[in-house]
Amino acid sequence: MDLWYTEKHTAAAGITLKVRRTLAAEKTPFQDLAVLETEQFGRALALDGMIQTTIKDEYIYHEMITHIAMFTHPAPRRVAVIGGGDGGAIREVLKHPSVEKAVLVEIDGRVIDICREHLPEIAGSLDDERVEVRVEDGIRHVKDNHNCYDVVIIDSTEPVGAAVGLFSPEFYADIYGCLKEDGILVAQTESPFYNKDLIRRSYAGISSIFPITRLYLASIPTYPSGLWSFTLGSKNHDPLDVPSERFHLIETKYYTPELQRAAFTLPRFVQELCK
Amino acid sequence: MDLWYTEKHTAAAGITLKVRRTLAAEKTPFQDLAVLETEQFGRALALDGMIQTTIKDEYIYHEMITHIAMFTHPAPRRVAVIGGGDGGAIREVLKHPSVEKAVLVEIDGRVIDICREHLPEIAGSLDDERVEVRVEDGIRHVKDNHNCYDVVIIDSTEPVGAAVGLFSPEFYADIYGCLKEDGILVAQTESPFYNKDLIRRSYAGISSIFPITRLYLASIPTYPSGLWSFTLGSKNHDPLDVPSERFHLIETKYYTPELQRAAFTLPRFVQELCK
Repeated sequence: MDLWYTEKHTAAAGITLKVRRTLAAEKTPFQDLAVLETEQFGRALALDGMIQTTIKDEYIYHEMITHIAMFTHPAPRRVAVIGGGDGGAIREVLKHPSVEKAVLVEIDGRVIDICREHLPEIAGSLDDERVEVRVEDGIRHVKDNHNCYDVVIIDSTEPVGAAVGLFSPEFYADIYGCLKEDGILVAQTESPFYNKDLIRRSYAGISSIFPITRLYLASIPTYPSGLWSFTLGSKNHDPLDVPSERFHLIETKYYTPELQRAAFTLPRFVQELCK
Repeated sequence: MDLWYTEKHTAAAGITLKVRRTLAAEKTPFQDLAVLETEQFGRALALDGMIQTTIKDEYIYHEMITHIAMFTHPAPRRVAVIGGGDGGAIREVLKHPSVEKAVLVEIDGRVIDICREHLPEIAGSLDDERVEVRVEDGIRHVKDNHNCYDVVIIDSTEPVGAAVGLFSPEFYADIYGCLKEDGILVAQTESPFYNKDLIRRSYAGISSIFPITRLYLASIPTYPSGLWSFTLGSKNHDPLDVPSERFHLIETKYYTPELQRAAFTLPRFVQELCK
């Protein structure tokens, strides 16, 4: 059988991947969830028909959403990941020895269960004793907590359904409140080719609240257009001003201390989105 | 009619684009040639079923294959583009006022004709008086010319058919010979995700001949994996050591003088390909 998964990234462009078999497929209270075994990228998690992560390229997204902020903070002790039920961002957070507590706040418990079962390379770190898994609404969580995190990572799906609120100015303001006085926010903010308006809005929203706001990029082959943006908001630590002695050695396949700066060096058309 | 063009980038992964109509389709003596009007990326040139360039994202490839080398040389006067029959690299070369002569060496005259007709935004610069269009074999051309170019750009298709020789050590050696004593070569060298062996071979081939060899990257949504590599070989000018006063203003949508350095800052897995 010649089985292909085709995902429309826009109304007129998409990706197509050969599939060996479907490992899981269910409707949760929040979304359609599937795990496919693709030939090119290995096992892949799809939510509402959009690939979230694959075994072969997940390291890029998870390293880049995590380490830039983690090295920007001099000693991140308490970190929250909002969304990110696959556990990949938590795995990367735990590579930093200063971390005492990593809180995963995922609204859909089935994502966590399914990833523990089918993507243990990614979800395995959720069993670490420093991790607290909370199956609850991230919007509620950041409203209810104040002055308690050094870094908050918004590892959301695209802004449809339950994730719409994760791109709102109110949410960014609540995160500001739940961060300590030198805390840092980082959010995935979609493709500079396909989601220009969303990037402009997120950037404007974050920069209206955080004194230091910067956008950076990483190349992710299974994500729409292959180029992905992240927006970092910081109360006072600048990701471009990290002293070299802060870079302790961590095992990575994409991130390097040199990329900490280079990832913020934007193509001209992306610079235009941050004005 | 719901018409989709699907291009396999590997045996198990590809891109799919909605097509409004086919503007041209023919078999030349060298390859299958088509121009499609896609909804997402506008008109697109495909050779042997692989997209070479589209109206909406061509600027990235053409700026990045050109300006890095052109700014690395203090005053490029004579430039050759091997392949590149669409004229995009030539258009970018001509943005540098030092250029006196830009030679396009394209083996397939039909590519030039069809691009002049259907992609005039890209091919239009071929009518500039500084341009010499030669419909001939690039391999022959660099063998027959010595010590005459400041910059040679290898703007090839992927290494199948007529283009295989454009990735060989012999070809790189002949280009060394056709460059002036401070000349620079730049070649497109495919995707770091899908073409690791090719990148290793090209890098090894170029670095066995050129004292300074460096690989850099750009994000191109219609190319396999969305991430693309270029390898630069230089007799003595280092692309990472360009004095700031050399960057005269040119109109670009992707390239910036800051990217001149940042594009060479590689993810760790790409660094591994250059050892």
